[in-house]
Parts: sequence; C-alpha cells; structure tokens
Amino acid sequence: MGLKKGSLWSHSADIASMPWFANGAHLGYMQRMFLDLQTLHHAATLLDTLGVIVFAITGALVAARRQMDPVGFIVVGTATAIGGGTLRDLVLGVRPVFWVTDQTVLVISMLAALGTFWAARSVSKIYRLLLWLDAVGMAVFAVAGTQKAADLGAAPVVCVLMGVMTASFGGLIRDILCGETPLLFHKEIYATAALIGAGLWLILGTIPALTPELRAILGFSAAFGVRAAAILWEISLPRYRQVH
Amino acid sequence: MGLKKGSLWSHSADIASMPWFANGAHLGYMQRMFLDLQTLHHAATLLDTLGVIVFAITGALVAARRQMDPVGFIVVGTATAIGGGTLRDLVLGVRPVFWVTDQTVLVISMLAALGTFWAARSVSKIYRLLLWLDAVGMAVFAVAGTQKAADLGAAPVVCVLMGVMTASFGGLIRDILCGETPLLFHKEIYATAALIGAGLWLILGTIPALTPELRAILGFSAAFGVRAAAILWEISLPRYRQVH
Amino acid sequence: MGLKKGSLWSHSADIASMPWFANGAHLGYMQRMFLDLQTLHHAATLLDTLGVIVFAITGALVAARRQMDPVGFIVVGTATAIGGGTLRDLVLGVRPVFWVTDQTVLVISMLAALGTFWAARSVSKIYRLLLWLDAVGMAVFAVAGTQKAADLGAAPVVCVLMGVMTASFGGLIRDILCGETPLLFHKEIYATAALIGAGLWLILGTIPALTPELRAILGFSAAFGVRAAAILWEISLPRYRQVH
Repeated sequence: MGLKKGSLWSHSADIASMPWFANGAHLGYMQRMFLDLQTLHHAATLLDTLGVIVFAITGALVAARRQMDPVGFIVVGTATAIGGGTLRDLVLGVRPVFWVTDQTVLVISMLAALGTFWAARSVSKIYRLLLWLDAVGMAVFAVAGTQKAADLGAAPVVCVLMGVMTASFGGLIRDILCGETPLLFHKEIYATAALIGAGLWLILGTIPALTPELRAILGFSAAFGVRAAAILWEISLPRYRQVH
Repeated sequence: MGLKKGSLWSHSADIASMPWFANGAHLGYMQRMFLDLQTLHHAATLLDTLGVIVFAITGALVAARRQMDPVGFIVVGTATAIGGGTLRDLVLGVRPVFWVTDQTVLVISMLAALGTFWAARSVSKIYRLLLWLDAVGMAVFAVAGTQKAADLGAAPVVCVLMGVMTASFGGLIRDILCGETPLLFHKEIYATAALIGAGLWLILGTIPALTPELRAILGFSAAFGVRAAAILWEISLPRYRQVH
Repeated sequence: MGLKKGSLWSHSADIASMPWFANGAHLGYMQRMFLDLQTLHHAATLLDTLGVIVFAITGALVAARRQMDPVGFIVVGTATAIGGGTLRDLVLGVRPVFWVTDQTVLVISMLAALGTFWAARSVSKIYRLLLWLDAVGMAVFAVAGTQKAADLGAAPVVCVLMGVMTASFGGLIRDILCGETPLLFHKEIYATAALIGAGLWLILGTIPALTPELRAILGFSAAFGVRAAAILWEISLPRYRQVH
C-alpha cells in the first residue's frame, strides 16, 4: 500500500485486508472508492512526512540563528520534529517510542535538519512558505496525535491533550534547547488551532456513518483553517497584561 | 469511600475491604476509629486536590508575569501541577502516567490555571496565602510520591528521591518553561523540607505499630514544619560563594 | 566478579558462567585469557564509575558558578551524571530506568556532587584534569549506551543515537537546568566524537572474530581519540554564520 509500518496514520493500513477489497468482482463504485482511499492514504503519508520535514527545518532555522554547528542543527531539528510525539508516547506508555520502532521519521528529520545547515540562507528566504507548511504539519500532527491516544483507549480530555502536545511540544522543546522564550505562549493562535482540530476529530467519532478518512480530513481542515486565519489576519488570543 | 480511583493516596481505598469493617457487629471503638479514618481520607483527598490547585495557580502566576495568553497559562499551570508526578511515573515505569488513568487531577489543574488568567490580579494579592498553601502542597506531594515509589517496591534512596521529585520538579519545569532561573536552587529551604518529610515517612515504616495514616501525617508534618520555619524565619541553606 | 548487577556493562557478567570457565582443567592460555578479561571488566566498571563521578562533578561545578545551595549541587550533578542514560532508557522502553534497579550509580553521583560543594575551589583548580576525565566518561558512555540499545534489538541508527544521547544529553540537561546556552552545540567536537565511537562499535559487530571486550575498547578508543584531538588542537566543527 506504500504505507510505512507503524506510521502515525497506521489505521489506514487495514484497508488492504478489508473483505470487499479482497473480492476482485466489485468494480465501478467500489473500485473508484478504493482508488480515492488509496489517494487519501498517499496524501496522509505525504502530509505526515511533510510535517516531519517542515518541523525539522524550523528547528534547524533556530539553530542557524544561534550559529550552531551541524550537530546542533541535527539535535535541535530532530527534537523539534519528533519531540512532541516522543513525549506523547512516553506519557501514554507506548514502549519503545514510535521512532525506535520505525526509523523512517528519525532519518528523514536528521537529513532535513542537516540539509538546512548548507541551505539555511535559501531556506530562510522561503520563510513565508515554511510558515504555511508548518501550519500543515501542525494540523496533521494534531489529528494523528489525538488518533493515536484514542486507539490506545485514552479518555477524551487526554486524547485532545495528546493531539495538542504532538502538534506543539516539538516547537516548545526547540525553544528550550535554544534558550529562546517559547513561541508557543506568545505567537498567534497555534496550540488553540490544534485544540480545535483535535476536539472536532473526537466529536466526529460519535457519527458512525463517517469514514475514518473523512473524519481525519475534517479535523485537519479545522486545525489548518483556524491557523490559516490566524496567519492571514494576525489573530492572537488576548495576553495577560499586568497593571502597574 | 469518596476516594477517586488511582489517587496518589490509593492505599486508603483498601480500608473498605478490611475484614473488621465488613463485619457490622463492631461498634464503639471500631466504629469511632473508622470514622476517624474516613475523616482522614477525606482530608488526604482534600489536601491532594488542594496541592494540585495551588501548584497550578503558582504556575499560572508565573505565566501572568510573563504576560502569556490563556494557552500559556494552561500549559505552564498544568505542567507545574502534574510535572513532578509525571516524571516520577516515567522513571518508575508506571504506564501510562497517573493523569492518563484518572483525569480528575488533569482537569482540575487546567481549570485552576485558566481561572487564574481572569483572576490573576486578585490571586496575586493573596500571595502570602499561596505561599502557605504551596507549602501544604509540597508536603502532601513529598509523602504521596515517596509512598507511590515504596508501593512499587523501589529502594529507599529511590523512594526518597521520588518524594522530593514529586514535590519540587513541577516548579522546576515551570521555571524552565518560562525561562526563569529555577527557584528550586535559590529560594529558602524547599527540596530539603520535602527530603526530610520523605525520609521520616520511610523511617517510620520500620515501626509496625504505626498506622499508615499516622505515618503519613507525621511525614507531612515534618515536611510542612521545616518549610514553615523556612518561610517564617527566612532560613536558607548556605549557598556556594565563589572567591574572586 | 566484582561487577554490579544491572551495570551498563552487564554483558561482561556472562563471562563467569561460560563453560570453559566452569571447567577448572583449562590452564595456560585460557587462564591467562580469563585474567585478562577480568582485568578488563574491572577496568570497565572502573571507567563506568569514573564517568559517573566526573559527570556529577562537572554538573556541580556549573552549580558552583551559579552559586547554588547543596540541594542544587545534588540535583544538577546527579542530573548530569544519569540524565543521558535516563532519557535513553525512557525512549527505549526500559522500565524502570537503570538507576531505579541499581542505585549504586545514583548514590555515587549524589555523593560526588555534594562533595564538590565543599571542594569546589580545589576541584576547579584541576579543571584541565577534569576535561580529560570527562572525555573518558563521554567515551565510556558512548559505547555503553550504544551497546544497551543493541542488546535490546534496536535498529543501527537508533543504537548510534542512543550512544550519542547517553554520552552528551546529561551535559545538555545540566545547561538547561542552569539556564546556560547548551555547550553541546558550541564547544569543540563532543557529540561527534561520541558518534564516531558509537558508529565504529556498531560496525565492528559485523566481525565475528572480535571479542566483545576488544570491540568495546576500539569503540572507546575512537571516541576518546577524536575528543582528545579536539581538546589538544581545539578542533571544532564549522558553525553556521549568518550573512548580515
């Protein structure tokens, strides 16, 4: 199916073993539906990989601002890309954590971070593009993180928290490693967008008619949409202001 | 029994199934003792909950000083309240960590932190009260953390360390998240008070006649007493001074 | 055998139960070889312990610079000594983490850190010696960390990463706890030396003729040699330079 084992989106791997697919006689609608699903899975894997690459690059760009050496680029970039998912797995008791089981994500993020060392000047020029790709990564991770917690049978509030954590804690770890004030607490709506996507995905689970794919797309769209609005119109939550 | 499942104080849940309690004929002393125990359990749950709320508020107050948005308040407040216990559970191999199993503590700390966003000005006025409530929380967590490690069969030195960790690492994580110099290493006796309470609780375990309740009260009192003395007379451990 | 249970070097504990050793008739070469092995094991335990002590002292010295109290010395020193291995065990799913199972390392690092509180002035005079001992500790931890991951059946890229993590993340945690810019990303070749040692150890595993001991020595030597060269000639990786 072209899906990597242990992927955050691993639910989709079950499709190939579904009874209606094993039966070659179903054509027309079924076949068309399968093709659509397959396209979706490829899109999911692509988005997942894209999210990891983009997160690794944003980590490496902060390393560039701090004038680190290549090792620093790899550590900060990789920690940004896999940090949120690692903390999620530790807290949920998944052992070992996901990138020990499937190293694809680990290797991709190391390469992306290292590549940024040589390409940082060009990469920083496409900052605006990165901002949008980062929004895609956040939305993918929000849904994937919530889903992983739900698959393990966690309570709703924990599922949503895991979605938010997977989407935003990589950036938090990046900022702590680099000694920066965590952006998470200051920049325009970010964790809130992840929260909305994760929450919607969870609520949609109460509708039996909805396919897992459509549910994931809707959750992703909500998270991405809110974040997109925040980027476009520079919306942010009200910050606490001390009266002096 | 009014005790939440998976509470840090879960040993008390066994009381209801103790043989002398199942037998309704025991009145007088036994009944009175049971009532005392029940009061104690309620007190323990109350203190436990109080500890979580106070820790969440102290985290949110640091978020207020850093002028964060509501999401920042929730993240920092919740991390302060459950961070120490989370690290303890990870290290001891408890999976999943306690707040994934029982979400009460998680929800309470999120609400307390969010509430502080609107009430921070009023809350900061009762700083002196918070300081004392924080001492209560620290003492509760020191005993509860040590006890959890002991229940899992950890070695004495590990038990004491887990008590200190549960009591003080939430504040450490709070300071790291907010980019502040960790107070743990500078302010008046804090981790040391937790250490004394945890150590006393462990030593008292060698006295078979002592009930678990009295043992917990004595450990709590030692930790709280030392911390109270430190607050009242501003006692601190000698700090290392460099000769220039 | 003088080997502590659960040691990072625990593979060597199997030697005593090897058939040729149980049979007292083998003298000459076998006996001589055994003596050599025993010397090696003692050396390994010694190096392991030395690594822990040195890491604890470097942590305590940063605590001294920050004028912390004794509790700060113990927390920072111990976190430096056992932090890398703790993160490794968490990620690999080893539960509980190594120092909960065997408290020797924990107690040694606490004592070393506390001792530094009183001896910091003398200790800082031997800074040059510490730099070299730290290189020994790094090289030991690089090989031991890689080996532990390999024993658990982890993939090569994960094994190498675990070696680097065990060797260098203690120092990273130390710097974060103390609010310093992580040295890992700035100082002369350090994580890279661990990477080379870990990688060589892994590659040498493809040669069946090589004894585990010789393999460990070669991996250690590679890591130590690269680090020694970096100290002697102040070699560092090129850092990223922003064009303004």
